[in-house]
Amino acid sequence: MFTVFSAGDIGAWRMTRCEAARGDGLPAAARLAITPSDRLAPSSQQPPSHQLWQLAGFASNVRYVERAEKTALVNVQAGLGRTEATCAALIPIKKSAAWWDLTQEERRDIFEAQSHHIAGSMTYLPAIARQLYHARDLGQPFDFLTWFEYAPEHADDFEQLVAHLRQTPEWAFVEREVDIRLTRA
Amino acid sequence: MFTVFSAGDIGAWRMTRCEAARGDGLPAAARLAITPSDRLAPSSQQPPSHQLWQLAGFASNVRYVERAEKTALVNVQAGLGRTEATCAALIPIKKSAAWWDLTQEERRDIFEAQSHHIAGSMTYLPAIARQLYHARDLGQPFDFLTWFEYAPEHADDFEQLVAHLRQTPEWAFVEREVDIRLTRA
Repeated sequence: MFTVFSAGDIGAWRMTRCEAARGDGLPAAARLAITPSDRLAPSSQQPPSHQLWQLAGFASNVRYVERAEKTALVNVQAGLGRTEATCAALIPIKKSAAWWDLTQEERRDIFEAQSHHIAGSMTYLPAIARQLYHARDLGQPFDFLTWFEYAPEHADDFEQLVAHLRQTPEWAFVEREVDIRLTRA
Repeated sequence: MFTVFSAGDIGAWRMTRCEAARGDGLPAAARLAITPSDRLAPSSQQPPSHQLWQLAGFASNVRYVERAEKTALVNVQAGLGRTEATCAALIPIKKSAAWWDLTQEERRDIFEAQSHHIAGSMTYLPAIARQLYHARDLGQPFDFLTWFEYAPEHADDFEQLVAHLRQTPEWAFVEREVDIRLTRA
Protein backbone atom coordinates (compact mmCIF):
# COMPACT_ATOMS: atom_id res chain seq x y z
CA MET A 1 0.00 0.00 0.00
CA PHE A 2 3.02 2.29 0.40
CA THR A 3 5.46 3.06 -2.38
CA VAL A 4 9.04 3.43 -1.18
CA PHE A 5 11.73 5.29 -3.14
CA SER A 6 15.21 4.18 -2.01
CA ALA A 7 18.34 6.01 -3.16
CA GLY A 8 21.56 4.01 -3.05
CA ASP A 9 23.55 1.54 -5.12
CA ILE A 10 20.71 -0.61 -6.37
CA GLY A 11 17.53 -0.03 -8.33
CA ALA A 12 16.07 0.00 -11.81
CA TRP A 13 16.68 3.74 -12.32
CA ARG A 14 20.03 5.50 -12.73
CA MET A 15 20.11 8.93 -11.08
CA THR A 16 21.40 11.56 -13.47
CA ARG A 17 20.63 14.67 -11.44
CA CYS A 18 19.61 15.47 -7.87
CA GLU A 19 19.27 19.21 -7.26
CA ALA A 20 17.65 21.35 -4.61
CA ALA A 21 15.05 23.49 -6.40
CA ARG A 22 13.98 25.21 -3.17
CA GLY A 23 15.24 24.68 0.40
CA ASP A 24 17.45 21.74 1.36
CA GLY A 25 18.34 19.14 -1.24
CA LEU A 26 18.96 15.42 -0.89
CA PRO A 27 22.26 13.54 -1.45
CA ALA A 28 22.73 12.26 -4.99
CA ALA A 29 22.99 8.49 -5.40
CA ALA A 30 23.86 6.10 -8.21
CA ARG A 31 20.50 4.38 -8.35
CA LEU A 32 16.91 4.64 -7.24
CA ALA A 33 14.77 1.60 -6.37
CA ILE A 34 10.98 1.75 -6.20
CA THR A 35 9.32 -0.92 -4.07
CA PRO A 36 5.84 -1.53 -2.66
CA SER A 37 5.67 -2.08 1.09
CA ASP A 38 2.96 -2.79 3.62
CA ARG A 39 5.04 -1.56 6.52
CA LEU A 40 6.60 1.79 7.12
CA ALA A 41 9.92 2.31 8.88
CA PRO A 42 9.77 5.00 11.57
CA SER A 43 11.00 8.27 10.06
CA SER A 44 13.57 8.47 12.88
CA GLN A 45 15.16 5.18 11.75
CA GLN A 46 18.29 5.23 9.59
CA PRO A 47 17.91 3.52 6.21
CA PRO A 48 19.96 0.33 5.59
CA SER A 49 23.68 0.96 4.99
CA HIS A 50 23.47 0.54 1.22
CA GLN A 51 20.87 3.30 1.04
CA LEU A 52 21.41 7.06 1.24
CA TRP A 53 17.79 7.96 1.84
CA GLN A 54 14.29 6.60 1.61
CA LEU A 55 11.01 8.39 0.92
CA ALA A 56 7.57 6.80 1.16
CA GLY A 57 4.08 7.77 0.10
CA PHE A 58 0.72 6.39 -0.88
CA ALA A 59 -1.40 6.80 -3.99
CA SER A 60 -4.89 7.95 -3.01
CA ASN A 61 -8.20 9.18 -4.33
CA VAL A 62 -8.12 12.45 -6.28
CA ARG A 63 -8.45 15.58 -4.15
CA TYR A 64 -8.98 18.46 -6.61
CA VAL A 65 -10.15 17.32 -10.04
CA GLU A 66 -13.79 17.84 -10.88
CA ARG A 67 -15.89 15.41 -12.92
CA ALA A 68 -15.21 16.87 -16.40
CA GLU A 69 -11.49 17.06 -15.61
CA LYS A 70 -11.46 13.51 -14.27
CA THR A 71 -13.15 12.20 -17.42
CA ALA A 72 -10.71 14.12 -19.62
CA LEU A 73 -7.72 12.85 -17.63
CA VAL A 74 -8.86 9.23 -17.73
CA ASN A 75 -9.31 9.50 -21.48
CA VAL A 76 -5.93 11.00 -22.23
CA GLN A 77 -3.41 9.96 -19.57
CA ALA A 78 -0.90 7.15 -20.04
CA GLY A 79 0.10 4.57 -17.45
CA LEU A 80 3.53 4.08 -15.94
CA GLY A 81 5.92 1.48 -17.32
CA ARG A 82 5.72 2.21 -21.07
CA THR A 83 8.74 0.70 -22.85
CA GLU A 84 9.60 3.96 -24.60
CA ALA A 85 9.45 5.99 -21.37
CA THR A 86 13.09 5.61 -20.38
CA CYS A 87 13.31 9.03 -18.70
CA ALA A 88 11.86 9.72 -15.29
CA ALA A 89 11.74 12.40 -12.62
CA LEU A 90 10.97 12.25 -8.92
CA ILE A 91 9.98 15.64 -7.49
CA PRO A 92 9.39 15.68 -3.73
CA ILE A 93 7.81 18.91 -2.46
CA LYS A 94 6.80 20.28 0.91
CA LYS A 95 4.19 23.02 1.12
CA SER A 96 3.99 25.67 3.84
CA ALA A 97 1.83 25.72 6.96
CA ALA A 98 -0.16 28.53 5.27
CA TRP A 99 -1.19 26.10 2.51
CA TRP A 100 -2.39 23.52 5.00
CA ASP A 101 -4.34 26.13 6.96
CA LEU A 102 -6.43 26.78 3.85
CA THR A 103 -9.70 24.95 3.35
CA GLN A 104 -10.29 22.55 0.49
CA GLU A 105 -12.09 25.13 -1.70
CA GLU A 106 -9.41 27.76 -1.06
CA ARG A 107 -6.72 25.27 -2.10
CA ARG A 108 -8.71 24.28 -5.18
CA ASP A 109 -9.03 27.96 -6.13
CA ILE A 110 -5.25 28.46 -6.00
CA PHE A 111 -4.54 25.04 -7.55
CA GLU A 112 -6.76 25.38 -10.60
CA ALA A 113 -8.54 28.75 -10.99
CA GLN A 114 -5.31 30.68 -10.35
CA SER A 115 -2.60 28.19 -11.27
CA HIS A 116 -4.26 25.99 -13.92
CA HIS A 117 -2.43 23.00 -12.51
CA ILE A 118 -4.75 20.48 -14.19
CA ALA A 119 -5.44 22.35 -17.44
CA GLY A 120 -1.77 23.33 -17.83
CA SER A 121 -0.56 19.78 -17.22
CA MET A 122 -3.19 18.28 -19.50
CA THR A 123 -1.49 19.71 -22.61
CA TYR A 124 1.51 17.44 -21.88
CA LEU A 125 -0.56 14.25 -21.82
CA PRO A 126 -0.24 11.45 -22.76
CA ALA A 127 3.48 12.09 -23.48
CA ILE A 128 4.25 12.56 -19.78
CA ALA A 129 2.82 9.95 -17.41
CA ARG A 130 2.71 10.75 -13.71
CA GLN A 131 1.67 9.37 -10.37
CA LEU A 132 1.20 11.40 -7.21
CA TYR A 133 2.07 9.89 -3.82
CA HIS A 134 0.92 11.52 -0.57
CA ALA A 135 3.56 11.64 2.18
CA ARG A 136 2.56 14.36 4.66
CA ASP A 137 0.15 12.14 6.60
CA LEU A 138 2.98 9.61 7.09
CA GLY A 139 5.13 12.16 8.95
CA GLN A 140 7.55 12.22 6.01
CA PRO A 141 9.88 15.19 5.33
CA PHE A 142 7.92 16.00 2.15
CA ASP A 143 4.17 16.38 1.58
CA PHE A 144 4.06 14.96 -1.95
CA LEU A 145 6.26 12.79 -4.14
CA THR A 146 5.42 13.06 -7.83
CA TRP A 147 6.83 10.50 -10.23
CA PHE A 148 6.96 11.27 -13.97
CA GLU A 149 7.88 9.01 -16.92
CA TYR A 150 8.47 10.10 -20.52
CA ALA A 151 10.36 9.19 -23.68
CA PRO A 152 13.61 11.07 -24.42
CA GLU A 153 11.95 13.00 -27.29
CA HIS A 154 9.59 14.60 -24.76
CA ALA A 155 12.36 15.85 -22.47
CA ASP A 156 11.79 19.46 -23.60
CA ASP A 157 8.06 19.14 -22.93
CA PHE A 158 8.86 17.99 -19.42
CA GLU A 159 11.11 21.01 -18.81
CA GLN A 160 8.25 23.27 -19.96
CA LEU A 161 5.79 21.55 -17.65
CA VAL A 162 8.10 21.94 -14.64
CA ALA A 163 8.83 25.59 -15.54
CA HIS A 164 5.08 26.28 -15.92
CA LEU A 165 4.27 24.87 -12.49
CA ARG A 166 7.12 26.70 -10.76
CA GLN A 167 5.84 30.14 -11.80
CA THR A 168 2.25 29.56 -10.64
CA PRO A 169 0.65 31.12 -7.52
CA GLU A 170 0.41 27.58 -6.13
CA TRP A 171 4.21 27.33 -6.07
CA ALA A 172 4.43 30.34 -3.70
CA PHE A 173 3.33 27.79 -1.06
CA VAL A 174 6.16 25.37 -1.86
CA GLU A 175 8.90 25.73 0.73
CA ARG A 176 11.03 22.75 -0.22
CA GLU A 177 11.46 21.05 -3.59
CA VAL A 178 14.06 18.59 -4.88
CA ASP A 179 14.41 17.83 -8.58
CA ILE A 180 15.65 14.29 -9.25
CA ARG A 181 16.11 13.05 -12.83
CA LEU A 182 16.63 9.46 -13.86
CA THR A 183 17.04 7.10 -16.79
CA ARG A 184 16.08 3.46 -16.91
CA ALA A 185 19.18 1.38 -16.03
CA MET B 1 1.90 10.42 13.73
CA PHE B 2 -0.44 7.41 13.77
CA THR B 3 -3.07 6.83 16.43
CA VAL B 4 -3.54 3.17 17.30
CA PHE B 5 -6.69 1.79 18.95
CA SER B 6 -5.96 -1.56 20.62
CA ALA B 7 -8.76 -3.73 22.01
CA GLY B 8 -7.79 -6.21 24.71
CA ASP B 9 -7.24 -6.42 28.46
CA ILE B 10 -5.49 -3.10 28.97
CA GLY B 11 -6.26 0.53 28.28
CA ALA B 12 -7.80 3.65 29.79
CA TRP B 13 -11.27 2.95 28.38
CA ARG B 14 -13.68 0.19 29.42
CA MET B 15 -15.67 -1.20 26.50
CA THR B 16 -19.39 -1.29 27.29
CA ARG B 17 -20.73 -2.17 23.85
CA CYS B 18 -19.30 -3.40 20.53
CA GLU B 19 -21.99 -3.91 17.89
CA ALA B 20 -22.03 -4.31 14.15
CA ALA B 21 -24.15 -1.43 12.80
CA ARG B 22 -23.66 -2.55 9.19
CA GLY B 23 -21.64 -5.46 7.79
CA ASP B 24 -19.20 -7.45 9.91
CA GLY B 25 -18.60 -6.43 13.51
CA LEU B 26 -15.49 -6.68 15.66
CA PRO B 27 -14.97 -8.86 18.77
CA ALA B 28 -15.84 -7.14 22.04
CA ALA B 29 -13.01 -6.66 24.52
CA ALA B 30 -12.68 -5.53 28.13
CA ARG B 31 -10.59 -2.46 27.42
CA LEU B 32 -9.42 -0.13 24.68
CA ALA B 33 -6.00 1.53 24.67
CA ILE B 34 -5.20 4.54 22.52
CA THR B 35 -1.53 5.07 21.72
CA PRO B 36 0.48 7.24 19.33
CA SER B 37 2.92 5.39 17.09
CA ASP B 38 5.41 6.32 14.42
CA ARG B 39 5.43 2.85 12.94
CA LEU B 40 2.64 0.81 11.51
CA ALA B 41 2.39 -2.96 11.78
CA PRO B 42 1.58 -4.67 8.46
CA SER B 43 -2.17 -5.25 8.29
CA SER B 44 -1.45 -8.95 7.66
CA GLN B 45 0.33 -9.25 11.02
CA GLN B 46 -1.52 -10.65 14.04
CA PRO B 47 -1.76 -8.26 17.01
CA PRO B 48 0.10 -9.23 20.23
CA SER B 49 -1.56 -12.04 22.21
CA HIS B 50 -3.13 -9.73 24.81
CA GLN B 51 -4.92 -7.81 22.05
CA LEU B 52 -8.03 -8.83 20.14
CA TRP B 53 -7.65 -6.29 17.37
CA GLN B 54 -5.89 -3.10 16.44
CA LEU B 55 -6.99 -0.25 14.22
CA ALA B 56 -4.80 2.67 13.14
CA GLY B 57 -5.38 6.01 11.49
CA PHE B 58 -3.98 9.50 11.15
CA ALA B 59 -5.47 12.91 11.86
CA SER B 60 -5.15 15.11 8.78
CA ASN B 61 -6.13 18.42 7.25
CA VAL B 62 -9.86 19.02 6.75
CA ARG B 63 -11.25 17.72 3.47
CA TYR B 64 -14.78 19.14 3.22
CA VAL B 65 -15.38 22.14 5.48
CA GLU B 66 -15.44 25.56 3.85
CA ARG B 67 -14.04 28.71 5.44
CA ALA B 68 -17.21 29.88 7.27
CA GLU B 69 -17.77 26.35 8.58
CA LYS B 70 -14.14 26.04 9.66
CA THR B 71 -14.33 29.32 11.57
CA ALA B 72 -17.60 28.28 13.22
CA LEU B 73 -16.17 24.87 14.16
CA VAL B 74 -12.98 26.32 15.62
CA ASN B 75 -15.06 28.74 17.70
CA VAL B 76 -17.42 26.16 19.12
CA GLN B 77 -15.75 22.75 19.26
CA ALA B 78 -14.21 21.30 22.42
CA GLY B 79 -10.95 19.37 22.65
CA LEU B 80 -10.52 15.76 23.71
CA GLY B 81 -9.62 14.88 27.30
CA ARG B 82 -12.13 17.02 29.24
CA THR B 83 -12.46 15.69 32.81
CA GLU B 84 -16.26 15.54 32.61
CA ALA B 85 -16.24 13.64 29.30
CA THR B 86 -16.22 10.13 30.76
CA CYS B 87 -18.21 8.58 27.89
CA ALA B 88 -16.69 7.82 24.51
CA ALA B 89 -17.50 6.12 21.24
CA LEU B 90 -15.28 4.72 18.50
CA ILE B 91 -17.12 4.35 15.20
CA PRO B 92 -15.07 2.76 12.40
CA ILE B 93 -16.72 2.96 8.97
CA LYS B 94 -15.89 1.77 5.49
CA LYS B 95 -17.44 3.47 2.50
CA SER B 96 -18.18 1.81 -0.85
CA ALA B 97 -16.14 1.86 -4.04
CA ALA B 98 -18.89 4.07 -5.51
CA TRP B 99 -18.08 6.75 -2.91
CA TRP B 100 -14.39 6.70 -3.74
CA ASP B 101 -15.10 6.91 -7.45
CA LEU B 102 -16.79 10.25 -6.88
CA THR B 103 -14.82 13.47 -7.23
CA GLN B 104 -14.21 15.83 -4.35
CA GLU B 105 -17.06 18.19 -5.27
CA GLU B 106 -19.49 15.31 -5.75
CA ARG B 107 -18.58 13.96 -2.30
CA ARG B 108 -18.92 17.43 -0.77
CA ASP B 109 -22.39 17.75 -2.33
CA ILE B 110 -23.58 14.50 -0.74
CA PHE B 111 -21.72 15.18 2.52
CA GLU B 112 -23.08 18.64 3.18
CA ALA B 113 -25.67 19.91 0.66
CA GLN B 114 -27.64 16.65 0.85
CA SER B 115 -26.68 15.23 4.25
CA HIS B 116 -25.87 18.34 6.33
CA HIS B 117 -23.05 16.41 7.98
CA ILE B 118 -21.34 19.57 9.26
CA ALA B 119 -24.42 21.69 10.01
CA GLY B 120 -26.23 18.77 11.63
CA SER B 121 -23.24 17.87 13.81
CA MET B 122 -22.62 21.49 14.77
CA THR B 123 -25.78 21.62 16.88
CA TYR B 124 -24.20 19.02 19.22
CA LEU B 125 -21.08 21.10 19.85
CA PRO B 126 -19.33 21.71 22.19
CA ALA B 127 -21.04 18.94 24.21
CA ILE B 128 -19.69 16.23 21.95
CA ALA B 129 -15.99 16.43 21.09
CA ARG B 130 -14.70 14.38 18.19
CA GLN B 131 -11.60 13.57 16.21
CA LEU B 132 -11.52 11.97 12.79
CA TYR B 133 -8.72 9.57 11.84
CA HIS B 134 -8.11 8.52 8.23
CA ALA B 135 -7.37 4.82 7.74
CA ARG B 136 -8.09 3.95 4.10
CA ASP B 137 -4.73 5.14 2.81
CA LEU B 138 -3.02 2.86 5.33
CA GLY B 139 -4.63 -0.25 3.84
CA GLN B 140 -6.74 -0.66 6.98
CA PRO B 141 -10.07 -2.58 7.01
CA PHE B 142 -11.95 0.70 7.62
CA ASP B 143 -11.72 4.06 5.83
CA PHE B 144 -12.37 6.27 8.87
CA LEU B 145 -12.19 5.92 12.63
CA THR B 146 -14.14 8.62 14.46
CA TRP B 147 -13.60 9.09 18.17
CA PHE B 148 -16.20 10.95 20.26
CA GLU B 149 -16.07 12.09 23.92
CA TYR B 150 -18.96 13.47 25.98
CA ALA B 151 -20.28 13.74 29.52
CA PRO B 152 -22.94 11.22 30.67
CA GLU B 153 -25.66 13.93 30.61
CA HIS B 154 -25.13 14.29 26.86
CA ALA B 155 -25.59 10.59 26.10
CA ASP B 156 -29.03 11.23 24.56
CA ASP B 157 -27.60 13.99 22.36
CA PHE B 158 -25.00 11.53 21.12
CA GLU B 159 -27.69 8.96 20.23
CA GLN B 160 -29.51 11.67 18.26
CA LEU B 161 -26.34 12.64 16.42
CA VAL B 162 -25.61 9.05 15.43
CA ALA B 163 -29.24 8.48 14.39
CA HIS B 164 -29.19 11.68 12.32
CA LEU B 165 -26.06 10.65 10.42
CA ARG B 166 -27.31 7.11 9.75
CA GLN B 167 -30.39 8.31 7.89
CA THR B 168 -28.53 10.72 5.58
CA PRO B 169 -27.85 10.12 1.85
CA GLU B 170 -24.15 10.00 2.77
CA TRP B 171 -24.74 6.86 4.83
CA ALA B 172 -26.04 5.00 1.75
CA PHE B 173 -22.34 4.77 0.84
CA VAL B 174 -21.38 3.18 4.18
CA GLU B 175 -20.93 -0.55 3.70
CA ARG B 176 -19.43 -1.43 7.07
CA GLU B 177 -19.88 0.30 10.43
CA VAL B 178 -19.10 -0.83 13.96
CA ASP B 179 -20.45 1.01 16.99
CA ILE B 180 -18.18 0.79 20.04
CA ARG B 181 -19.10 2.54 23.29
CA LEU B 182 -16.79 3.13 26.22
CA THR B 183 -16.46 4.71 29.64
CA ARG B 184 -13.30 6.01 31.22
CA ALA B 185 -11.81 3.23 33.40
